[in-house]
Amino acid sequence: MFWLIFGIFLTACLGAGATGGLFPPGRWYRDLRKPSWTPPDWVFPLTWMILYVCMALAAARVAMLPGNGVAMALWAMQIAFNALWTPVFFGLKRIRMGMAVIGALWLAVLGTLIALWQVDTVAGLLFVPYLVWVTIASALNAAVWRLNPGEARAA
Amino acid sequence: MFWLIFGIFLTACLGAGATGGLFPPGRWYRDLRKPSWTPPDWVFPLTWMILYVCMALAAARVAMLPGNGVAMALWAMQIAFNALWTPVFFGLKRIRMGMAVIGALWLAVLGTLIALWQVDTVAGLLFVPYLVWVTIASALNAAVWRLNPGEARAA
Repeated sequence: MFWLIFGIFLTACLGAGATGGLFPPGRWYRDLRKPSWTPPDWVFPLTWMILYVCMALAAARVAMLPGNGVAMALWAMQIAFNALWTPVFFGLKRIRMGMAVIGALWLAVLGTLIALWQVDTVAGLLFVPYLVWVTIASALNAAVWRLNPGEARAA
Repeated sequence: MFWLIFGIFLTACLGAGATGGLFPPGRWYRDLRKPSWTPPDWVFPLTWMILYVCMALAAARVAMLPGNGVAMALWAMQIAFNALWTPVFFGLKRIRMGMAVIGALWLAVLGTLIALWQVDTVAGLLFVPYLVWVTIASALNAAVWRLNPGEARAA
């Protein structure tokens, strides 16, 4: 049962992650001014695959336990927000709107981490790398906003 | 606790639903050949709001009950797939890819309905209108594909 539930949660992650292939960073993103610490492109899909496995493991552990209602609701919320960012940033090229989405995602991930932790410590810990990565991604989105004022105004 | 969980699930729905505002049906959709039974544009957001409330009520009921793991995982999966369709269809204007996404969504909604029903009959019933609507939306996507072979080839 654990692995069935894990597989379903992982498929949810892959659904959100499909946006990465559908809305790839193209010429527009390459030509943006980016901070010196911007990770190279190949780091993003690799990191996300590891995070998806951690996120699905965390969700599956808590899905087996009683009192999981708030954690399960927040997990669903964060995956919906997660699916939203890539189409907004790379699809619509809206940097400011991307900032709003990733801010909401950051709060949703923090909330999910806390709610998971209250049910199962290991599940909470499995969400820590995700929160760290969304923090880095938020900082990158903010830096791109600051470094490309013309683009941000246009969007 | 029930209304807190309901509110979180409803926010997840609104996250997916935000794609409707971000990727609105524009000139491209207006100019497509559509079947005679295509609902007018205003029907879509209204229907979705009602469905979101039903979906969140169903999820919140089951979130309070034991043995909810599979249902909670499938609910999260269907909302991720739900968030994907609008950016693919209206954002990328990819009718065939939209068909693949809505097919996956239809299966996810059916699976979620069955899993919810096994925990709570009312929750399963609350998902019936959603399955009906995704069936109609799938038929519309398929009809648009058939009626606009040039568009579908291009995408």
